[in-house]
Amino acid sequence: MLTGRSPSAHVDRVRPDVAVVGAGPIGLAVAWRCAARGLRVTVHDPAPGSGASSVAAGMLSPVAEAYFGERELTGLLVESAARWPGFAAELAEATGATLGYRTEGTLMVGLTGDDLAEARRLWAYQQSLGLPVTPLRPSELRTHEPALAPRVRGGALAPTDHQVDPRLLVPALRTAAERAGAVLVPGVVRRLADLDAAVTVVAAGCGAAALTGLPVRPVKGQVVRLRAPDGGPPGFRHVIRGYADGEHVYLVPRDTGEVVVGATVEERGDTTVSAGAVLRLLRAAVELMPELAEYDLVETVAGRRPGTPDNAPILGALPGRPDVLAATGHHRHGIVLTPVTADLIADLVTGGVPDPLLAPFRPDRFTARADSADASAAGVADAANQRTEEESWS
Amino acid sequence: MLTGRSPSAHVDRVRPDVAVVGAGPIGLAVAWRCAARGLRVTVHDPAPGSGASSVAAGMLSPVAEAYFGERELTGLLVESAARWPGFAAELAEATGATLGYRTEGTLMVGLTGDDLAEARRLWAYQQSLGLPVTPLRPSELRTHEPALAPRVRGGALAPTDHQVDPRLLVPALRTAAERAGAVLVPGVVRRLADLDAAVTVVAAGCGAAALTGLPVRPVKGQVVRLRAPDGGPPGFRHVIRGYADGEHVYLVPRDTGEVVVGATVEERGDTTVSAGAVLRLLRAAVELMPELAEYDLVETVAGRRPGTPDNAPILGALPGRPDVLAATGHHRHGIVLTPVTADLIADLVTGGVPDPLLAPFRPDRFTARADSADASAAGVADAANQRTEEESWS
Repeated sequence: MLTGRSPSAHVDRVRPDVAVVGAGPIGLAVAWRCAARGLRVTVHDPAPGSGASSVAAGMLSPVAEAYFGERELTGLLVESAARWPGFAAELAEATGATLGYRTEGTLMVGLTGDDLAEARRLWAYQQSLGLPVTPLRPSELRTHEPALAPRVRGGALAPTDHQVDPRLLVPALRTAAERAGAVLVPGVVRRLADLDAAVTVVAAGCGAAALTGLPVRPVKGQVVRLRAPDGGPPGFRHVIRGYADGEHVYLVPRDTGEVVVGATVEERGDTTVSAGAVLRLLRAAVELMPELAEYDLVETVAGRRPGTPDNAPILGALPGRPDVLAATGHHRHGIVLTPVTADLIADLVTGGVPDPLLAPFRPDRFTARADSADASAAGVADAANQRTEEESWS
Repeated sequence: MLTGRSPSAHVDRVRPDVAVVGAGPIGLAVAWRCAARGLRVTVHDPAPGSGASSVAAGMLSPVAEAYFGERELTGLLVESAARWPGFAAELAEATGATLGYRTEGTLMVGLTGDDLAEARRLWAYQQSLGLPVTPLRPSELRTHEPALAPRVRGGALAPTDHQVDPRLLVPALRTAAERAGAVLVPGVVRRLADLDAAVTVVAAGCGAAALTGLPVRPVKGQVVRLRAPDGGPPGFRHVIRGYADGEHVYLVPRDTGEVVVGATVEERGDTTVSAGAVLRLLRAAVELMPELAEYDLVETVAGRRPGTPDNAPILGALPGRPDVLAATGHHRHGIVLTPVTADLIADLVTGGVPDPLLAPFRPDRFTARADSADASAAGVADAANQRTEEESWS
């Protein structure tokens, strides 16, 4: 258990309490939270903010991203999204920075009858979880967003699914972390053994695999950025998540005039932009909102999401390594999960005991599958077993 | 009339014989040809090669570009294309440079029945001019280029329509011009009166309008550049000019793996890239050649072609200004017209008498329309009148 200004810290002034590997939003937010509690923190990254977050659209969409079979992940998304307003306010106060945090909500739409049928099945599931999803008639859709194509067949509103601009978020988090006392170290970390800190937090995205052996793989995502002509704002204000002739696409409008159109989900690790991906994204975007054809195309880019076998993040101590905490594998959800990850990892660093919210996301869920299968048959024994392991981390 | 090392040159050693405004392919080729004849030449451009040529695909296509109602232009295109093999060889010999000059020919194709009907009408016209166009059956098309989509309905071969890479051509021309003694001056020319040379050649593309008052307007063209994956060459060797669901698109393969996909023709002068243009180009390209979806998208770019009221270049002395020669307004044809423009303008500089080939492209054709309408009614009188004017230029 670490507390601010610990005795050991006084003995060895150069040894940090926490070394964070990775200065993306997760790593920087963890560093901020830890430094704010009085811990000495270093953050190691040769190029802060250059990973998946530089490509991400920044949707805070626990509702629209609530998929079949991912109930535990949905719970964490909802929890983190609920923390976002306070997190954004705190961050803005700590830094004076603008984050592009917007709360107009998300419109989910289906272009064709087939698209709508697919979407409605998901909306019904989301409603069955008690999530706020309001189906809209086409006329209501167009009242919300007149720029939608007339042929869009139907949609639904997820009013609590918001957005933030990751390219504003990351510098703000860096400022906040540094103002709280965290120190950025620009070197590349090739081995965790090279770090000398009481606790190491691996928030290295796809880089976590090489550092820890965790099953984190790159999931390529291609994104196109447009800009409304003549310096004006985009002609719509909601985040649009659409199904268009079987293609899934989102359109995220920014106050700056930018519109992010994304994203492919590809099982490969390169970052080249392909003609076919740009074609599919633009075609779906323009079908849903014809005026986008007149927008400037300002960027095409690809990033690598840190994916995991069950699409959920990996949060907590490595098996047998209570001094090494993983905070990675956030896949499509790194931005929305930033507040809860930062809070719970900072709690774990300082308190030594993982919050129950972290239980489904433990690193050992991939290695201990055989054991836990046995244990789950034993019911209570499983919980007891888990508690013992958790206590051993402190 | 200017000749190499003229007496006046000896009197005033700093005054150039020829000042060329614009270091695109036209300006540089004129400079090369003039310098090679012993004239002292300066070329004025703050950014050589940064104009339309940096966007151009480099098709040498007098046949595929032979359109209804442009017979005189077609004649000049054919003449210049015929000079290209010698021009390329001379340039390669003078510089040792690679130009990406390729002679596989051009396949013209129609995707749908409607596309093919439109294309066939043009091919018939081109054949009626005696130009080499060979209709191909779909099976023959696929023998020539197996990568074409199976649904392409038909096509024709223009074996003499070749290609060159403008991004290799311009540096080679610059080297050739400089080796021949031309001097590049990096300044911006705002007024022709600021230049002190015996003859000024305005090869400034769209910039010619402000310098001369000639009716040259920017015609925007957007282009996408792809690259074959894994460092290989493209999967096709002919230039492809296609009609795809009413969209006209060309695909130009390079030895480097690059494929140029172009181009829009827009009556506007900005150089922003629009989402709609990229969408239309990529859609047509992928419909004609599906494997292009897997190619990397490496560049989206827009340029400004120097267009004229009759789509033909403006070549020759300004009205009443025998010392100022225009070599601009090449619109879509700047690369193919480079050899003939350079040869005939250099002839005019040194000989003082315009080649008969230049007659349809005289600068005064826009201002003297009323006169020539009268004169053409008079038949022979017109020719006599024209000869007199030409002689007055020497």
